[in-house]
Amino acid sequence: MEWINDLKFDGNGLVPVIAQDYETGEVLMLAYMNLEALGRTLKTGKMHYFSRSRRKLWLKGETSGNIQILVTLYYDCDMDSLLAIVRQEGEACHTGNKTCFYRIGYGAEKT
Amino acid sequence: MEWINDLKFDGNGLVPVIAQDYETGEVLMLAYMNLEALGRTLKTGKMHYFSRSRRKLWLKGETSGNIQILVTLYYDCDMDSLLAIVRQEGEACHTGNKTCFYRIGYGAEKT
Repeated sequence: MEWINDLKFDGNGLVPVIAQDYETGEVLMLAYMNLEALGRTLKTGKMHYFSRSRRKLWLKGETSGNIQILVTLYYDCDMDSLLAIVRQEGEACHTGNKTCFYRIGYGAEKT
Repeated sequence: MEWINDLKFDGNGLVPVIAQDYETGEVLMLAYMNLEALGRTLKTGKMHYFSRSRRKLWLKGETSGNIQILVTLYYDCDMDSLLAIVRQEGEACHTGNKTCFYRIGYGAEKT
């Protein structure tokens, strides 16, 4: 886990994390981790994030039950973002949608 | 395109954008757009980003030729991140890898 020492957190101590569904390949959400959230994620195998609005650590699915089990975690070439392949329990979005990216701004749904 | 008025840019005027390969579903990179980059992307159909290190607008593939053609653009539930489904010309990463997320920090490659 030496790569963690080289991970670049932003001025607020956060790094963006993309969660992608292991089964379908759907991008589920973009959220943020601080070092503690990353540590707890790696220790427990359950995705933890840092909520920027609530200013606190957050176990994804803590209240909804819609947890995310980490399968594979990638870090990018610049070491300033993460990609988590996860097994999503239920839906990822608090709106009840499978993914947070359920609205199209341009183009059409892939058929 | 009224959704753009509700898009939340951060304190630096940026919004994170996930680029995902149309053909393979691979997550290619995470980059940032300002309003101008978004406008040029929608006008030209080619992904434009704002480089935080070079502090300038950037047509992806301008020098390498590895452009990204926008197929579908999604915005998320909180309206503070974007997901772009793109047709990637060549590879996405400046290292020569297909995706910027080519290194594993935890877990194993999907087989």
